[in-house]
Amino acid sequence: MLLRMSTLFVRTLREDPADAEVPSHRLLVRAGYIRRAAPGIYTWLPLGLKVLAKVERIVREEMASIDAQEVHFPALLPREPYEQTGRWTEYGPNLFRLKDRRDVDYLLAPTHEEMFTLLVKDLYSSYKDLPLALYQIQTKYRDEARPRAGLLRGREFIMKDAYSFDVDDAGLDAAYQRQREAYQRIFMRLGLEFVIVEAMSGAMGGSRSEEFLMPTPIGEDTFVRSAGGYAANVEAVTTVAPPAVDWAGTPAAHAEDTPDTPTIDSLVTLSNARFPRADREWTAADTLKNVVVATTDPEGNREVLVVGVPGDRDVDMTRLEASLAPLAVETATDADFARHPELVKGYIGPQVLGRAHTGSESALRFLVDPRVVDGTRWITGANEHGRHAFDVVAGRDFVADGTVEAASVRAGDPAPDGSGPLELARGIEIGHIFALGRKYAESLGLTVLNENGKAVTVTMGSYGIGVSRAVAALAETNHDDAGLAWPAQVAPAQVHLVAAGKDEAVKAACEELAADLDGLGIEVLLDDRPRVSPGVKFADAELLGLPVVVVVGRSLAEGVVEVRLRRPADAGLAAGERPEAERVPVADAAARIGQIVAELV
Amino acid sequence: MLLRMSTLFVRTLREDPADAEVPSHRLLVRAGYIRRAAPGIYTWLPLGLKVLAKVERIVREEMASIDAQEVHFPALLPREPYEQTGRWTEYGPNLFRLKDRRDVDYLLAPTHEEMFTLLVKDLYSSYKDLPLALYQIQTKYRDEARPRAGLLRGREFIMKDAYSFDVDDAGLDAAYQRQREAYQRIFMRLGLEFVIVEAMSGAMGGSRSEEFLMPTPIGEDTFVRSAGGYAANVEAVTTVAPPAVDWAGTPAAHAEDTPDTPTIDSLVTLSNARFPRADREWTAADTLKNVVVATTDPEGNREVLVVGVPGDRDVDMTRLEASLAPLAVETATDADFARHPELVKGYIGPQVLGRAHTGSESALRFLVDPRVVDGTRWITGANEHGRHAFDVVAGRDFVADGTVEAASVRAGDPAPDGSGPLELARGIEIGHIFALGRKYAESLGLTVLNENGKAVTVTMGSYGIGVSRAVAALAETNHDDAGLAWPAQVAPAQVHLVAAGKDEAVKAACEELAADLDGLGIEVLLDDRPRVSPGVKFADAELLGLPVVVVVGRSLAEGVVEVRLRRPADAGLAAGERPEAERVPVADAAARIGQIVAELV
Repeated sequence: MLLRMSTLFVRTLREDPADAEVPSHRLLVRAGYIRRAAPGIYTWLPLGLKVLAKVERIVREEMASIDAQEVHFPALLPREPYEQTGRWTEYGPNLFRLKDRRDVDYLLAPTHEEMFTLLVKDLYSSYKDLPLALYQIQTKYRDEARPRAGLLRGREFIMKDAYSFDVDDAGLDAAYQRQREAYQRIFMRLGLEFVIVEAMSGAMGGSRSEEFLMPTPIGEDTFVRSAGGYAANVEAVTTVAPPAVDWAGTPAAHAEDTPDTPTIDSLVTLSNARFPRADREWTAADTLKNVVVATTDPEGNREVLVVGVPGDRDVDMTRLEASLAPLAVETATDADFARHPELVKGYIGPQVLGRAHTGSESALRFLVDPRVVDGTRWITGANEHGRHAFDVVAGRDFVADGTVEAASVRAGDPAPDGSGPLELARGIEIGHIFALGRKYAESLGLTVLNENGKAVTVTMGSYGIGVSRAVAALAETNHDDAGLAWPAQVAPAQVHLVAAGKDEAVKAACEELAADLDGLGIEVLLDDRPRVSPGVKFADAELLGLPVVVVVGRSLAEGVVEVRLRRPADAGLAAGERPEAERVPVADAAARIGQIVAELV
Repeated sequence: MLLRMSTLFVRTLREDPADAEVPSHRLLVRAGYIRRAAPGIYTWLPLGLKVLAKVERIVREEMASIDAQEVHFPALLPREPYEQTGRWTEYGPNLFRLKDRRDVDYLLAPTHEEMFTLLVKDLYSSYKDLPLALYQIQTKYRDEARPRAGLLRGREFIMKDAYSFDVDDAGLDAAYQRQREAYQRIFMRLGLEFVIVEAMSGAMGGSRSEEFLMPTPIGEDTFVRSAGGYAANVEAVTTVAPPAVDWAGTPAAHAEDTPDTPTIDSLVTLSNARFPRADREWTAADTLKNVVVATTDPEGNREVLVVGVPGDRDVDMTRLEASLAPLAVETATDADFARHPELVKGYIGPQVLGRAHTGSESALRFLVDPRVVDGTRWITGANEHGRHAFDVVAGRDFVADGTVEAASVRAGDPAPDGSGPLELARGIEIGHIFALGRKYAESLGLTVLNENGKAVTVTMGSYGIGVSRAVAALAETNHDDAGLAWPAQVAPAQVHLVAAGKDEAVKAACEELAADLDGLGIEVLLDDRPRVSPGVKFADAELLGLPVVVVVGRSLAEGVVEVRLRRPADAGLAAGERPEAERVPVADAAARIGQIVAELV
């Protein structure tokens, strides 16, 4: 393949696009790989499409290696199957819905569990037909509230979604494991660093799921890991609850004036000064902070809810929302407070909360952090302005309606599996695998006859990779200040050949070398633009980021071309170091470049 | 590539799907290539997807051969660009429209002229950047009133759409010609018969367009051709108008009682009996039939319109609608007649019609067939029940508001270019190329600076191939009663290897031959199903339609396998004849099959 800059449909931009927040977005647009068509909706230009095709190819090869068969579903789908599983509603405003000319409801599919389930139901009927794994690489839609970061969070995007069908749990486990291993190979081949973390299944449902996160400070997901091997999305971290405490001997609860304590810290200071406890000092962890939120279910019903967490932690809305899915959660409004005068803002105590609690004035649902076990002793609001209650004991003075994972997770918190303290990091979700179990098969009636002729419900898994997002993730980890720096296996071409000079000899040598490389099966981008200076060409070569840059210019007089690797890593250097140019005799150039490329790919 | 029937995701069906009207639809579903997801919306199963990929590959190769560069646009697009060109409205109910969560209007693109125009405007600015040709293979949407015939007329379908950008008319002509030739090569490589016909540009606009039609009786398009080389879609046929006639000497118009003349024939018989003309007999072609229709513009405004055609012809609603595009046309309703009492049903005469005509009572717009030139003398309605008017002369007794191509075209009509009488046939549109000119560039402001630094509007072409429809067209022309019969270049695999027998020797020989063929790079589908009879396997092989069928069975005892071509054409036979099986020694089988496949591809 020989591309020419003189005719290639690309324009490099010196200015960053106004809406670009992250390097991958900025550079993919500036280098002419993608172009914005609408918020969260992008067009692939020729170079971007070539990268995408290479990523897709690796995905297809690894899917084939585990005998997953490729199919292709429509994006425009009828409402009924999604109605049957409840997702028509559960997806809420994230789903693009539309009507056809006969006023029939359709959607643009965000994922295809329902359709795959129905297809297998349609064609298969016996345990002998299973196991089965199907996949597609297909355009998906999600009406994100905040599309951002270019391809990282789009509203139209490309997914590889695979589905496994098995007759029993052992089959699902094996299928899940095969996909998990294929994912590891895919990301290794792409050169993407990843961490596999436990995750919440969200709208997908199912018994178990894991995310493949690429660690990066710009990631939208926060995850935790311990030295002992535990790793989870912060949404999925479970809190280690202490054992219940015997409350015999704990003083009766008493309300006190606590003037000038607008913060937890000031409350703790005042408490230690004025109401010290005998055994030790009060700390922020002894205060119980009751946060009022409002949930909205997929049908739009709103409910006010109070969440109690230890005062040394915040309510993490992402964790709370994941725990309460499919409910959407927001901070309570003034109107919510107005409807509940028993909630004294800043001084809310659990004594008036909860449905199970007989003394509850509000009858509002009250969920607490798992650390709030029976017998624990708290400083909390007294439900009167300017007053707090002390020695308020869980199980004695209040009863919650249940626990909820809402409190923020902190570095140093214990891993739930006992494998040591947690550290926190951020990452981009590049893959997500779900052991769905029988949720979809049950809703849609997918059964097969087993060996005894009895109908059994099929168990399923679903396995997604954001293919367009993977391109952005690659750009995110493979760039420097000057531009992109693709690894050879996904670069739009391997060699960027720069004609740096106007004379005919340079032009002729470039054409010959380009033809020779093309003959060797090497993908070449020849910068043959006649009226562009070497400086601009060099800058464009840096920006476009092909792995091998060959310059035919001044040194041609000495019979030499210059070959340089774009990526420090390819030259065995640390990030930030600049690989040296290698001077290669013109006569050996094609062979030497061929050798370099062969080592890279 | 080695596929196994034991694990391939396919089920052949003995029953035709209830909604299948045409062979391609019936067979593609029965053979497990596609599956319906919703009306006009299909899922590609593994075998279908392989055929699709092969068609796409041929299209890509030929696009590359004319230096068209591949890009990829979103399907979900914002309203504004389509608003600017008027197509948001013009597409009427054929456009899938939707709103996002912010209530912003979007559409699912039926074609991408606007977006390509804007992209080029975005990146290019000089005549030096042109000529440029871009294309994509992408999913398109059209909310067809009557989706039918499987992939032939779908609501979600795959198109290759290419666009050319040139600075002047000569450039557009050259680009159009290059695409036209690439299309010829594509269809020749696919083995699809085609006729290139003049066509109407419809909602696309532009100065000139041609369709590539595959002749078939089940085609939705009617086209004409003359022995002299004229060919046109029937919608695009222009009527040869006779010269005007001197009306001096034509008797004055006179109304007469014409009882019991419910048909044109009965009217002609009565006319010749009671009101004979001196020079010759009256014929149906001397009667003027005035047909009342109602048009609806894209904004939904309805207008009643009368169309006058010679009584020996019908109004062809398709031709009329194409002439009046973007108006939709339907037969007038009783309500329309009720609003216009001057229209006496069955006796409408032009004397009361037309806006230009001073005597017009109705002031309804009146368009006539081009044959109704000044001086022509007609029998027509007298606008009174039971009476017709005779010697009604165009230009003397009535004046039309213009001409319209509405009359049906008949075999034997003269070609408009004088190349002889026309014959009629039906076909499927498999490609359509448009010399758009400057319509989109003007609407959207796509200009480049010319050599003198002056901004000039770019001229464009647009070139479409229905890629998914091409798969159906291939099935339509490559099948027999037993099933599909793919030409090798698009078959999902080349060899269907049938293990016809239960013993281990058959199984072992099949596995070895399959491995050998796979080693030769031949795509093999091995029917290794353990509990399926040879009869069922043979029937499935016929139904699936791979070009080379190899049977390992009874003759294995003699050291022989049987090799048979699926398609009579591949064996040099006429359709309907059955190619003979060739007995090949097992030891030579792989080599011999390799040779056969090499000759076919």
